Amino acid sequence: MNIRFYNAKILQTAEDHTFYITEGELWVQGNRISYIGAGKGDGAEDGKGTEPIRWEREMDVQGNLLMPGFKNAHTHTAMTFLRSYADDLPLQDWLNQQVFPREGQLTEEDVYWLNILGIMEYVTSGITSNFDMYFFPPMNAKASADTGFRTVQTSGLNNYGGTVELMEENYHIVNEMSDLTSFIVGFHAEYTTSKELMEGVAKLAQKLKSPVWMHNAETKREVEECRERWGMTPTKLTDSLGMYEYGGGGYHCVWFEEEDFEIFQKRKLTAVTNPASNLKLASGICPVKRFADEGIALAIGTDGPASNNCLDMFREMFLTSTLAKVREMDAACISADEVLYMATAGGAHAMLLEDCDSLAEGKKADLIMIDLQQPNMQPENNIVKNLVYSGSKQNVKMTMVNGKILYEDQQFHLGFDKTEVYRRANEIIGRMK
Amino acid sequence: MNIRFYNAKILQTAEDHTFYITEGELWVQGNRISYIGAGKGDGAEDGKGTEPIRWEREMDVQGNLLMPGFKNAHTHTAMTFLRSYADDLPLQDWLNQQVFPREGQLTEEDVYWLNILGIMEYVTSGITSNFDMYFFPPMNAKASADTGFRTVQTSGLNNYGGTVELMEENYHIVNEMSDLTSFIVGFHAEYTTSKELMEGVAKLAQKLKSPVWMHNAETKREVEECRERWGMTPTKLTDSLGMYEYGGGGYHCVWFEEEDFEIFQKRKLTAVTNPASNLKLASGICPVKRFADEGIALAIGTDGPASNNCLDMFREMFLTSTLAKVREMDAACISADEVLYMATAGGAHAMLLEDCDSLAEGKKADLIMIDLQQPNMQPENNIVKNLVYSGSKQNVKMTMVNGKILYEDQQFHLGFDKTEVYRRANEIIGRMK
Repeated sequence: MNIRFYNAKILQTAEDHTFYITEGELWVQGNRISYIGAGKGDGAEDGKGTEPIRWEREMDVQGNLLMPGFKNAHTHTAMTFLRSYADDLPLQDWLNQQVFPREGQLTEEDVYWLNILGIMEYVTSGITSNFDMYFFPPMNAKASADTGFRTVQTSGLNNYGGTVELMEENYHIVNEMSDLTSFIVGFHAEYTTSKELMEGVAKLAQKLKSPVWMHNAETKREVEECRERWGMTPTKLTDSLGMYEYGGGGYHCVWFEEEDFEIFQKRKLTAVTNPASNLKLASGICPVKRFADEGIALAIGTDGPASNNCLDMFREMFLTSTLAKVREMDAACISADEVLYMATAGGAHAMLLEDCDSLAEGKKADLIMIDLQQPNMQPENNIVKNLVYSGSKQNVKMTMVNGKILYEDQQFHLGFDKTEVYRRANEIIGRMK
Repeated sequence: MNIRFYNAKILQTAEDHTFYITEGELWVQGNRISYIGAGKGDGAEDGKGTEPIRWEREMDVQGNLLMPGFKNAHTHTAMTFLRSYADDLPLQDWLNQQVFPREGQLTEEDVYWLNILGIMEYVTSGITSNFDMYFFPPMNAKASADTGFRTVQTSGLNNYGGTVELMEENYHIVNEMSDLTSFIVGFHAEYTTSKELMEGVAKLAQKLKSPVWMHNAETKREVEECRERWGMTPTKLTDSLGMYEYGGGGYHCVWFEEEDFEIFQKRKLTAVTNPASNLKLASGICPVKRFADEGIALAIGTDGPASNNCLDMFREMFLTSTLAKVREMDAACISADEVLYMATAGGAHAMLLEDCDSLAEGKKADLIMIDLQQPNMQPENNIVKNLVYSGSKQNVKMTMVNGKILYEDQQFHLGFDKTEVYRRANEIIGRMK
């Protein structure tokens, strides 16, 4: 589809990870951005000479903002069914008593529908891709392919479910299913996974030349118990098993020790912070400033809807910046630009998404429109700060993935009836009550 | 205006500060709720016998939620002009170098328009009243009266502006201006106010039989310096000056000491927490659990848009609960019900708002409609948890104050053209750049 956006403010990403605004037009041809710049008359020509472009749609952006979509760099989307079901419990009790027994009852079809519900929520929040870990990766991928949403998956392999062989199978199925779906090697966490399985993961990663991802140092107890078991931290242990020959990273990364930072730096791993979940489960506050100071790449994720409980990157961005400030007791630490970079380009790089990190000619059209004509975006003293500190899902006017509009003016264009999706989600959890 | 809401879920407040849902109808007659209960046929009769009600409007709520509006219990609304203007600075530098010099340039008319902008933002967030401290209280009150919004004010008196006499004058002007506007005695903070002025405040409070409010223990430095000056904390000092004969409370209340809790308990004062602002200015995390354990009343505020930077009670509710959890390292601490109570009834009581604390027959119609047919509100495992943990401004379908709809389906009904309000806000800060 060819779409011409005009009268737009276009948020572009500079090499130093700051942002600047270009005023004018953005053209989408097929699934890519073909032009960003000043208006060119009626837009009927691409400026390169000969062939006129047939626009399926020309949209007056009315001075609003086009920006890269948010990348939700860690989540368990299908956990939508447990939203507000079991809250206010410590992580281990919550997992063992509430989450695991109910997850065991999920069918493949359940996971499909619960992913559709999560994707609906993503597009309302300006999220254009997610980095997911859950059961039944092919069904998860099918939900993304069917709706037109972009999903990168990793494996949630652990002692209670999955095998390395099944992961390898899923790796190929998901990577080959669609342009919108991909798969990277991973496993749940050290505290749920035997050394033999972890060794298998390391071998598979080497065979497939894949990065490796896992939950890492989410709680203090997790790190303490790992030390008791292996005499080292989860980062050190997994590194010693040869996990990170092709990079990767960790989710949460709250309770990091000196040598963990060194390994992340040396192996060029990415730390994904999940601030809302870490607060709600009383896990702690991620040392984001230390990661930034060490030059370690950062990205931001919501974690799953059962632990957050929402899939809202505006809230995560605000928390990433302000929790760093209060943790360091330094209001100057972590700027709005740094956070916005993590939430867009940082996530795209962690997820190995090609050409989805920023708005520029040739990049994929994974972009969103932000309504600046809302009171929380006024006055326009600084648009990036407005986004990070006062932005809200309410400001998301449109979400486009791979050149296709999936959400616009509160309407979903995902090919599903929302009432039916809600009915199924309520039915799934209803069955388990 | 008489409005009949039907097919509604109505969120009512129990005596033990929890919430329950009544399904059916809610009737508004004039500025009050006249009925809550099961449907009564076509609603043409009030069920008490004789007189048929003439409905100006009958609204099918379609199973969505009616709930009490949020009370924003501490803010400086007109600081909208400084939103995203000077961020990422410590509180004292931010105040002295960025805020105070620009506030000095504000005219009365500026404050009027900047309040209108803030009120627009309030209604998008389901806020039906605010507890404000700023310059030119009569202009602030006029903005509320003109838009139909409910505002309680206190004084920002300090060494650099205002007198006790002027406060007394404003007290009468604002309390008498409109049903929607009221005024309670207060001053800025110990660290900006001389002992003589504070003594004057105490006398005025006794004369007017008014509670007293101030910024209290927002930063560690503030408390340390107060100790150096007076050998006691701000709470102890103000109590010793006779401030709290008629109650009152403090904003922020982050760095509280043993005797402060005792005084708050003894004097029945309220602590207003401002979590987003406290994070962003790296002030600290309020000991909400301790206040709750001591039985001290709590309410929640956004603080001003220059320090937050948005006026969003959903974000504040999430933070109030989850910061308590991470502060105490206890995921079970502070429930969603407790937080929702603070954000509604708790604020109403702190602000001395009569009959605005909950939805019941005879209460004022300060209420909002929450769209449950959004993905972040599904499945409906627990509506209160959905509100507190995953709710968003995006879910606010309607905001009604004093029986009048001020916002509905993204449209403002405040009597002002939004473009004109934004133009003026940009012009005001533009003048100062």
